[in-house]
Amino acid sequence: MPKKKLNVALIGCGFMGRTHSNAYLKVNRFFDLEYQPVLRCMCDLNEEKLKKFAENWGWETTETDWRKLLDRDDIDAIDVVSPNNTHRDIVVAAAEAGKMVLCEKPLAIDAGQGQEMVDAVEKAGVSNMVWYNYRRVPAITLAKQLIDEGRIGRVFHYRAKYLQDWTISADVPQGGDALWRLDAAVAGSGVTGDLLAHSIDTAMWLIGGVDKVTAMTETFIKERTHQATGEKQKVTIDDACAFLAKFNNGALATFESTRYARGRKNQNTFEVNGEKGSIFFDLEDAHQLQYFNHGDDAHVHGWRTILVTDSEHPYMDHWWVPGCTIGYEHTFVHALADFLKGIETGEPVRPNFRDALDTQRVCDAVLKSAKTEVWEKV
Amino acid sequence: MPKKKLNVALIGCGFMGRTHSNAYLKVNRFFDLEYQPVLRCMCDLNEEKLKKFAENWGWETTETDWRKLLDRDDIDAIDVVSPNNTHRDIVVAAAEAGKMVLCEKPLAIDAGQGQEMVDAVEKAGVSNMVWYNYRRVPAITLAKQLIDEGRIGRVFHYRAKYLQDWTISADVPQGGDALWRLDAAVAGSGVTGDLLAHSIDTAMWLIGGVDKVTAMTETFIKERTHQATGEKQKVTIDDACAFLAKFNNGALATFESTRYARGRKNQNTFEVNGEKGSIFFDLEDAHQLQYFNHGDDAHVHGWRTILVTDSEHPYMDHWWVPGCTIGYEHTFVHALADFLKGIETGEPVRPNFRDALDTQRVCDAVLKSAKTEVWEKV
Amino acid sequence: MPKKKLNVALIGCGFMGRTHSNAYLKVNRFFDLEYQPVLRCMCDLNEEKLKKFAENWGWETTETDWRKLLDRDDIDAIDVVSPNNTHRDIVVAAAEAGKMVLCEKPLAIDAGQGQEMVDAVEKAGVSNMVWYNYRRVPAITLAKQLIDEGRIGRVFHYRAKYLQDWTISADVPQGGDALWRLDAAVAGSGVTGDLLAHSIDTAMWLIGGVDKVTAMTETFIKERTHQATGEKQKVTIDDACAFLAKFNNGALATFESTRYARGRKNQNTFEVNGEKGSIFFDLEDAHQLQYFNHGDDAHVHGWRTILVTDSEHPYMDHWWVPGCTIGYEHTFVHALADFLKGIETGEPVRPNFRDALDTQRVCDAVLKSAKTEVWEKV
Amino acid sequence: MPKKKLNVALIGCGFMGRTHSNAYLKVNRFFDLEYQPVLRCMCDLNEEKLKKFAENWGWETTETDWRKLLDRDDIDAIDVVSPNNTHRDIVVAAAEAGKMVLCEKPLAIDAGQGQEMVDAVEKAGVSNMVWYNYRRVPAITLAKQLIDEGRIGRVFHYRAKYLQDWTISADVPQGGDALWRLDAAVAGSGVTGDLLAHSIDTAMWLIGGVDKVTAMTETFIKERTHQATGEKQKVTIDDACAFLAKFNNGALATFESTRYARGRKNQNTFEVNGEKGSIFFDLEDAHQLQYFNHGDDAHVHGWRTILVTDSEHPYMDHWWVPGCTIGYEHTFVHALADFLKGIETGEPVRPNFRDALDTQRVCDAVLKSAKTEVWEKV
Repeated sequence: MPKKKLNVALIGCGFMGRTHSNAYLKVNRFFDLEYQPVLRCMCDLNEEKLKKFAENWGWETTETDWRKLLDRDDIDAIDVVSPNNTHRDIVVAAAEAGKMVLCEKPLAIDAGQGQEMVDAVEKAGVSNMVWYNYRRVPAITLAKQLIDEGRIGRVFHYRAKYLQDWTISADVPQGGDALWRLDAAVAGSGVTGDLLAHSIDTAMWLIGGVDKVTAMTETFIKERTHQATGEKQKVTIDDACAFLAKFNNGALATFESTRYARGRKNQNTFEVNGEKGSIFFDLEDAHQLQYFNHGDDAHVHGWRTILVTDSEHPYMDHWWVPGCTIGYEHTFVHALADFLKGIETGEPVRPNFRDALDTQRVCDAVLKSAKTEVWEKV
Repeated sequence: MPKKKLNVALIGCGFMGRTHSNAYLKVNRFFDLEYQPVLRCMCDLNEEKLKKFAENWGWETTETDWRKLLDRDDIDAIDVVSPNNTHRDIVVAAAEAGKMVLCEKPLAIDAGQGQEMVDAVEKAGVSNMVWYNYRRVPAITLAKQLIDEGRIGRVFHYRAKYLQDWTISADVPQGGDALWRLDAAVAGSGVTGDLLAHSIDTAMWLIGGVDKVTAMTETFIKERTHQATGEKQKVTIDDACAFLAKFNNGALATFESTRYARGRKNQNTFEVNGEKGSIFFDLEDAHQLQYFNHGDDAHVHGWRTILVTDSEHPYMDHWWVPGCTIGYEHTFVHALADFLKGIETGEPVRPNFRDALDTQRVCDAVLKSAKTEVWEKV
Repeated sequence: MPKKKLNVALIGCGFMGRTHSNAYLKVNRFFDLEYQPVLRCMCDLNEEKLKKFAENWGWETTETDWRKLLDRDDIDAIDVVSPNNTHRDIVVAAAEAGKMVLCEKPLAIDAGQGQEMVDAVEKAGVSNMVWYNYRRVPAITLAKQLIDEGRIGRVFHYRAKYLQDWTISADVPQGGDALWRLDAAVAGSGVTGDLLAHSIDTAMWLIGGVDKVTAMTETFIKERTHQATGEKQKVTIDDACAFLAKFNNGALATFESTRYARGRKNQNTFEVNGEKGSIFFDLEDAHQLQYFNHGDDAHVHGWRTILVTDSEHPYMDHWWVPGCTIGYEHTFVHALADFLKGIETGEPVRPNFRDALDTQRVCDAVLKSAKTEVWEKV
Repeated sequence: MPKKKLNVALIGCGFMGRTHSNAYLKVNRFFDLEYQPVLRCMCDLNEEKLKKFAENWGWETTETDWRKLLDRDDIDAIDVVSPNNTHRDIVVAAAEAGKMVLCEKPLAIDAGQGQEMVDAVEKAGVSNMVWYNYRRVPAITLAKQLIDEGRIGRVFHYRAKYLQDWTISADVPQGGDALWRLDAAVAGSGVTGDLLAHSIDTAMWLIGGVDKVTAMTETFIKERTHQATGEKQKVTIDDACAFLAKFNNGALATFESTRYARGRKNQNTFEVNGEKGSIFFDLEDAHQLQYFNHGDDAHVHGWRTILVTDSEHPYMDHWWVPGCTIGYEHTFVHALADFLKGIETGEPVRPNFRDALDTQRVCDAVLKSAKTEVWEKV
């Protein structure tokens, strides 16, 4: 049976442009879906880069002005992976034009923008998804499953870390094409929006809503050369952020993120401690989930290292054979497969824009608390 | 050459009574020291338990009233391992009687008591030590050495956890002989004084003084049967405590402790992230230290698992051969050896009572912040 | 610059058909190469399966008789992933027809066949490669690099395991479409050719030639239902095989493989112990390489866990960012990229058919020794 | 109740002299036993060393001629930890004198001597034990328990390694006081008797008798200075040994030992793969046992890391609290406690001399096979 075509336009030739392009090309080879994405149009401000990118990935056409996409009838869905400060305008316009909207995380610069975006997509009634791709790491999806199966019971504790080390050198510049994540004007915030947003999305998916937080942030290197100006400028992002939180259900949490943890490359971890069991995950060992089951016989109690590569595990029956791992990019394929399945079944995919707005609100409360130095309600 | 005798009285037949008795018997077999402890007198309120204990360990005499020890000329040193709320009175009286004083951690119920104790020992000029034994885990001593060697450089982050799971069941009673740690009237606090005090002592030894903290505590099980009364009573200790901290040197820290982390038995961990390297330790793998050296060639960068069993490692030349581990109790032997060496050399051992008071002050600030919900200066 | 096209025909719709198809589609997106494979023709005996497969992966044409490929001018290279007992005939004919030849491992049923194949490709002078894909796991390529850099020095020991557990149940049938690996008539041998061949290829690449071996094999389940006949038949493959070996350079080795190691899914490990250092690898943690450097300061000696995800690591600059892993399928992309690069540069890729014949000879000696029960020269 | 005294004489002031002395002093503090060892007499050829040793450990008397012990009525038990080539004469004489006999492993230089020793103790009817102390690592005892509980089922595979790295340097001398293990005339063999004997004892305890073996040995450094003569002499011990084995029950095994595995300090490991589960142990992480239970739900299958520190675990209720580890020396305390319990209950402790003879026979077959290069029956 021939597939239904879903014509996609992708905005942004950066790192995420590659992960999404790969997903669009690959999804139907591994997932049996009614819809097949067509790589209709690639869009970026930088024309030279755009041409090369489009050719490499097989995008059929290009645009340098995203507004052109709004009127093109051959575009069903707009996928936004341009810098954070562009999300709001594009998404609102795209929704108003009746396009499906996919958007990279974090949703927006702040919850105010995020609310506008939610209003727009909900008013337009268009399919929407935010790419919190780590939900689709099979081990994290399995963690969710174990919780839903009642294997953890009442949750007492949650602790999340997201540690990297790539900005320790004072010679790393800020801003510009590849480093806009270090420029608060473009990114909104530093590790809070870039890394903790992932941690918060995962946490709320697994545990539920956050009630209140108290936070601290730090900028270790106070000035860096800006790529655009070549001048030393004050660094306005948060290099590091840690916060305490209480969930609505009474569980306690700690969260921490930094780009100054020497030796930690992409160490996104979480641990859940409940009455009946515990779970631990580390993105640097993404193919594993650690699980402690209090119900085991006492003398064989122990943390199990589940090798999440079997056909019983989420998404894994689409790939290879037991013991064969998948990688980082596959999480985007999974997210896309779920999005397409959502269109097919009418059961909208999650996290949608409203879910991502909830995450944004926690981020905002965290950044506020770091300034007010008191607990802030979400 | 015959050893100089150091006549010891030990107060308290509990768990710590065993670890200390073992240390007194064992230290001279493995360490070449001028002084040799003599197990002169064992003291406890419970006479039946006392007799049995003294016989098992070879204590020469017994007392049920600790005040009797003050006038005995055959006692050089008094070692206090009775519940926390007894420390102040015993220590102050012992110091005034001119005895050397050793005391289990935490120093006292609060910093007010601790200050009295410091004043007493310093006024009397007697040798004193607080048994923060984990400093003497060879891997932790090695961590201190690596920092002192300049291998870590400017410290950005410190994160400590101390997780256990033995009070999750609502059927665990509070108070009484073995469970006084669950009775705030006797223990002073819950995990903060019992577990976090260790984490704080280690942290300040490795990194330096703490400037300020913001904390949260929780008591998950609100009522438990009290062993003394047989009645359900309100639980007043903290089952869990987490706090954010800033060190005086600008480093950021997170600390967390609980007895509700299913599957974590004695997981006392810390991680230091500095400009030049990082260190990680976990008491559940106490024979290892993890070390990341940024100075290694880039393509062989990696976390090293140092098996801390070689003769180059702190204390290990006194024990067996490479690859042969030691256990929990050895940390007390090391502390005692260092105490005896301190008497021998005139270079007082650390942590002394003043050091332990610094730790107590952080604990007090943590508990205060958990109530005030704002940052508290130490 | 437009790419030069390399028209490929792939024979075999099984598991390896998928990994190769994926590689052909993906290689040019991530590697900058002069040649671009074109998925010209897919070939399999089973027409229904073939149609579906070709459609899913975008193969332009199909054939059910591989001999048809020989005369097609639009085919430059033939890639053989059909069962082992078909390799010889196809490869010899393809080489004689002047096609480039790629072949899945093991090269053949035995060294006799393998020799014919080597003769054919060398006589024809066609490009050839055997898909020992694990050489292209970045961590294994890094191991090779560390050895070549002189970091290991004189090698004393090599130990390899390849453990799986998927045939323990007596209910697993043998033979037929998906399970031809369990039928000795089709596969040639059991774990020796399927798994140990990988271990041997890696070992000889890293250490050099094998002088002699002594081996044992076992078939634990003596009879299984054959899928083709529906009858219980004697199982003639080796379920398990272990052997001792001496390398030409004097190093000692142990090798073991089985499909009866409960809990081991794809545990392909090796360890090298040399005068100056050691290396350990486990395919179940394929993103890591363990390295011990004797040259480190003695008190910080330790096994390093190298997270092989940085741009300094082999192949990884083509993928994502530090800390982001790749998966099983990427090893095929790497092999293909290297093959294409070989055509581009005229520097033939390894392992070629001659290399694979060396591996086959070790396999033959192993199987022979298991019967003769004495050491066999390779 | 006063203890019954067991008057002990210990022969040998070396490394094992220390571990045994410690055990005699410590056992009754932690185990409630009817018998209490008395450190009656210490014996060694080197008088100076002997005096110092006896004083340090509190041995009441000393002898430089072990024959003197035979007639002393104040000696109940003789414990032999002198070099291997002295075991036979001492043990036979001690048994004939009616003394209980304890002996360090390996039992003897070869099975011929071992048989004489077994005959002597059995004829005399005296209590006897060989100190294969690793059986008393709680994690190994737990492994035995899990097998006895039927958790592993039919065993397919066993693989053992015992790797060290302390003789790689050509500057290490052989022979003499501390290094007699490197002198084949004194030790009997190299790693086979010193290390593999442990591995074999554990294996036969867990799995059962060994049917046949094929082995290889190597001496990497051909000449070393002998401490006694100061001359370079040929090295006659085996630096490394590996062998394949078949157990009587049909299970396959690999064994390997070396002192040339850079970075492995005391890595004594074994793995059991059975129909229902698997077990893995590593002495360098002696507080853990890895266990895979095929009976777990498929999506939570995983290797469990059992932290063997709970009161449910073998021996651990005698020590501290959950999460607190014990060390190498405790295995000797456990062995001694079991020996004393054996006297108390009349249920002889294992491994006795006969068990150790079985191990010796496997060692002999291994060494023979390394010469004959064929499989040897045990």
